Amino acid sequence: MPTITDDLLRKTIRIRPNQSFKGTYGKVTLVGGNKHFGGAIIMASSAAVYSGAGLVTTVSDMANLSSLHARLPEAMIADVNDPKQVKALIQPAKVVVIGSGLGTDAHSQQILKEAFDAISPKQIVVIDGSAITLVALKHIPLPKAHLIFTPHQVEWQRLSGIKLADQGDIAKNQKARDRIGGIVVLKSHHTQIYSDKPMLQNPIGTPAQATGGMGDTLAGMVGGFCAQFSNSLYATASAVYAHSDIADHLAQNQYVVLPTQIISHIPQYMKRHEARR
Amino acid sequence: MPTITDDLLRKTIRIRPNQSFKGTYGKVTLVGGNKHFGGAIIMASSAAVYSGAGLVTTVSDMANLSSLHARLPEAMIADVNDPKQVKALIQPAKVVVIGSGLGTDAHSQQILKEAFDAISPKQIVVIDGSAITLVALKHIPLPKAHLIFTPHQVEWQRLSGIKLADQGDIAKNQKARDRIGGIVVLKSHHTQIYSDKPMLQNPIGTPAQATGGMGDTLAGMVGGFCAQFSNSLYATASAVYAHSDIADHLAQNQYVVLPTQIISHIPQYMKRHEARR
Amino acid sequence: MPTITDDLLRKTIRIRPNQSFKGTYGKVTLVGGNKHFGGAIIMASSAAVYSGAGLVTTVSDMANLSSLHARLPEAMIADVNDPKQVKALIQPAKVVVIGSGLGTDAHSQQILKEAFDAISPKQIVVIDGSAITLVALKHIPLPKAHLIFTPHQVEWQRLSGIKLADQGDIAKNQKARDRIGGIVVLKSHHTQIYSDKPMLQNPIGTPAQATGGMGDTLAGMVGGFCAQFSNSLYATASAVYAHSDIADHLAQNQYVVLPTQIISHIPQYMKRHEARR
Amino acid sequence: MPTITDDLLRKTIRIRPNQSFKGTYGKVTLVGGNKHFGGAIIMASSAAVYSGAGLVTTVSDMANLSSLHARLPEAMIADVNDPKQVKALIQPAKVVVIGSGLGTDAHSQQILKEAFDAISPKQIVVIDGSAITLVALKHIPLPKAHLIFTPHQVEWQRLSGIKLADQGDIAKNQKARDRIGGIVVLKSHHTQIYSDKPMLQNPIGTPAQATGGMGDTLAGMVGGFCAQFSNSLYATASAVYAHSDIADHLAQNQYVVLPTQIISHIPQYMKRHEARR
Repeated sequence: MPTITDDLLRKTIRIRPNQSFKGTYGKVTLVGGNKHFGGAIIMASSAAVYSGAGLVTTVSDMANLSSLHARLPEAMIADVNDPKQVKALIQPAKVVVIGSGLGTDAHSQQILKEAFDAISPKQIVVIDGSAITLVALKHIPLPKAHLIFTPHQVEWQRLSGIKLADQGDIAKNQKARDRIGGIVVLKSHHTQIYSDKPMLQNPIGTPAQATGGMGDTLAGMVGGFCAQFSNSLYATASAVYAHSDIADHLAQNQYVVLPTQIISHIPQYMKRHEARR
Repeated sequence: MPTITDDLLRKTIRIRPNQSFKGTYGKVTLVGGNKHFGGAIIMASSAAVYSGAGLVTTVSDMANLSSLHARLPEAMIADVNDPKQVKALIQPAKVVVIGSGLGTDAHSQQILKEAFDAISPKQIVVIDGSAITLVALKHIPLPKAHLIFTPHQVEWQRLSGIKLADQGDIAKNQKARDRIGGIVVLKSHHTQIYSDKPMLQNPIGTPAQATGGMGDTLAGMVGGFCAQFSNSLYATASAVYAHSDIADHLAQNQYVVLPTQIISHIPQYMKRHEARR
Repeated sequence: MPTITDDLLRKTIRIRPNQSFKGTYGKVTLVGGNKHFGGAIIMASSAAVYSGAGLVTTVSDMANLSSLHARLPEAMIADVNDPKQVKALIQPAKVVVIGSGLGTDAHSQQILKEAFDAISPKQIVVIDGSAITLVALKHIPLPKAHLIFTPHQVEWQRLSGIKLADQGDIAKNQKARDRIGGIVVLKSHHTQIYSDKPMLQNPIGTPAQATGGMGDTLAGMVGGFCAQFSNSLYATASAVYAHSDIADHLAQNQYVVLPTQIISHIPQYMKRHEARR
Repeated sequence: MPTITDDLLRKTIRIRPNQSFKGTYGKVTLVGGNKHFGGAIIMASSAAVYSGAGLVTTVSDMANLSSLHARLPEAMIADVNDPKQVKALIQPAKVVVIGSGLGTDAHSQQILKEAFDAISPKQIVVIDGSAITLVALKHIPLPKAHLIFTPHQVEWQRLSGIKLADQGDIAKNQKARDRIGGIVVLKSHHTQIYSDKPMLQNPIGTPAQATGGMGDTLAGMVGGFCAQFSNSLYATASAVYAHSDIADHLAQNQYVVLPTQIISHIPQYMKRHEARR
């Protein structure tokens, strides 16, 4: 069973070329954050910005405008309840992250459908949180695109039909992934990444990470890494590893590690693991 | 008279098991924060998150949405003025913290009643600030549950009928506690904790803590500790001790210690006092 | 001409007695902050809290709710446009700070009148910014109370009638102060404090402080110091000196010193200058 | 080809005279920030304040009030949708920064026209972002004043008609600048500054800066420097150089450098490069 090492980071995080501009590092559009779960989309958006994405737009309930900009003026905001804006901001994106704090009611469902309709085949779509639940339970058809799912174990059960007790069975998970397609980041104590390549296991991580918002942060990091680095599987695995490695480091001195603390350490962490290719 | 030592912390703060997820560390729902006292519920919620509670939901006036998420995107928010939401978010919680910045008007009273109605016997309920005053003065019947009261001396007078001048009488306080039930954290220079066990006294603390919001912060810490650690009395006493110990440490270099400064030091403090059990 | 030294701080900033609670350190109510100048009242309020005032309430336009609590959850907020609230929150205060960001239109004028009407003779009233201008230009009668004015030179011209060019004349300033009464903090390169005692001059300060919000911050510090320390003149002079001394220290490494940076250093600064009395 | 060195900073950043007040360091009014791009005007305003401008007013959509003050209470705010306020706040300014996050719709166009109408010939006007696009594509007539344009390469193509592939041709750029007038800061890997003097090239900068908001931050710094230092060309070139130099320093340890991180380092950076003149 191949485990991720920091070698993979060095294969992924390239030293930035001098001749480059923000367009070089990709547009990421994040869709989520209803009136109750605004924090989730703020953390996902922050993770994308701090991972180095060139241009980040947050499409959420406008109730989140002030808190988003108070924490992250680097992001732009648009109204998730305006189908035209959702479409207009998804179309030019290299990566779309959808689901963090989106909610699962009928309105969220409608937004998800509209968002999926706007997706085109070359785009990378990170499907997180509520969006996984909606896809699984409401049978919303998936768009044709490069899909990356980031379920925790209960969401994976919903999506794959595999019960929690059976999720230790790698072959079963792989089979479900093959049916669903895309990349599956199955989050747990040692997160596993399923794709059309052999499963990659994350050997690190800490129980200090077991707190709300950790998954939203990972989704944003996956989005930010995929916006910049061409191999989506490597980019995803690198984001997973970096997320845990930063947490492990902080957990040496903290009983609980907050998502926002991980976010603020991403730029330094990536610098230490960049390499010329 | 038994005094709390940091031994108690080691008996309480367990090293987190590797095989765990955010559900392991408890759901905390905090109810309070009207239009004027939003800061109180923000501090209580922050204290719960930084203490390591797995999942934190803040039920307050929606006027506090932006400031809550600007400081603490890790928390979710719901509308305290919507009885359905209050009920729906109290029911799944392991711990409910109620009263920080709730206010004491007729509307606050109505919210408190609805909240108490939603409580079930296995839940831990931290009753703080305005909620103590309302219980005492408006004779709102207490729910059947594991109750923890966190009165300052004036609130204790209201709740117990014992005048400030007589609160040095431990037997009297104990008797009032026995009548009321639950755990009583009687906040003062050296906070005392009354329960069905012998009174525990906090030997530390500093006058630098004598500033607004300190009690809200303690209530959130008690909530966060009780969400994670099975012995509620030990969890409560550990939170009290930790709150003062962090303050004492900061007070070596500060004339006044702000509640938000204490909050940011909780994760490091808990790490230093965790122990295998 | 007596100049302030840090000896005065030691005569003013007492070591806090162990047996004390937030009521010991005074209630401060700050009135100001219209829709455009919310930052001013946020800075004044923050300065009061970080100076150690026991309980701080900000009475401003409710548009400032989110930004106040995002920065300072320790303060409570009330609506400056609601005369009942203004009155109810001024009456129990030991110190009222009025004018930071209040504005000078007819509505501001109305608020100032209502606020002054609610003042009682034993209260300390810090009259700052727009409030000085309104008093001077609109001839709003001053309340009977312990008044402290914090004009910059243009505001002093309005209040005293002394032209800028003539403000170097100490006797003239003193005479104007004697006519107006109270304490006058005449802010300039070397701030002078006039009262019924000989003028006190602040020998320190830096041009790095010459930036918007510096005066609001000082007004809040004066409020916070007067809430805690019994000699109002010493408290005022100590606040002026501390404000400059912190700035001087920061200016060793900064071209401009921001008001919010001064605020965050107050607790440490006061600790270094506390003394037993 | 003359390149900027830190010598120029020393010729520009004067040691502040003791006898000075906030008026000495200039009023800057920033106009921009619609409902979607509030972060842009927050970053520009912050950069102006942290550069040492005496008094900063942000004229934007009032939706940005809370986030602006949560990050920067030092700034005042006014409503960009109120033509009277726009005019009243532009007229007394020494420097007007216009365009950061303004947007390019018909309403933005109207605001830009009104703002330009309020400009008088002695004012310095930094024309950034959306304002450049509007000037170029909607042929909005430029005001008579000291104009400074801060286009990135696509915006320069719109403004000058020179295609991206031809922008390496200095003579061509100079010719376009001569036709347009003012100072042109052509942002790229090595930013070039065109004026009626020989072109100045910025020899430093890092691809870690290639992220959203970097240009808004530079516009605010140019505004802040021009408010304080009398030679506008030197002030502009110094701001460009300082912006890159701070980024270079941070990029030694960060894969991406956030605009807000640059902003927080400006006061220390300027202190290290001030000189007596």
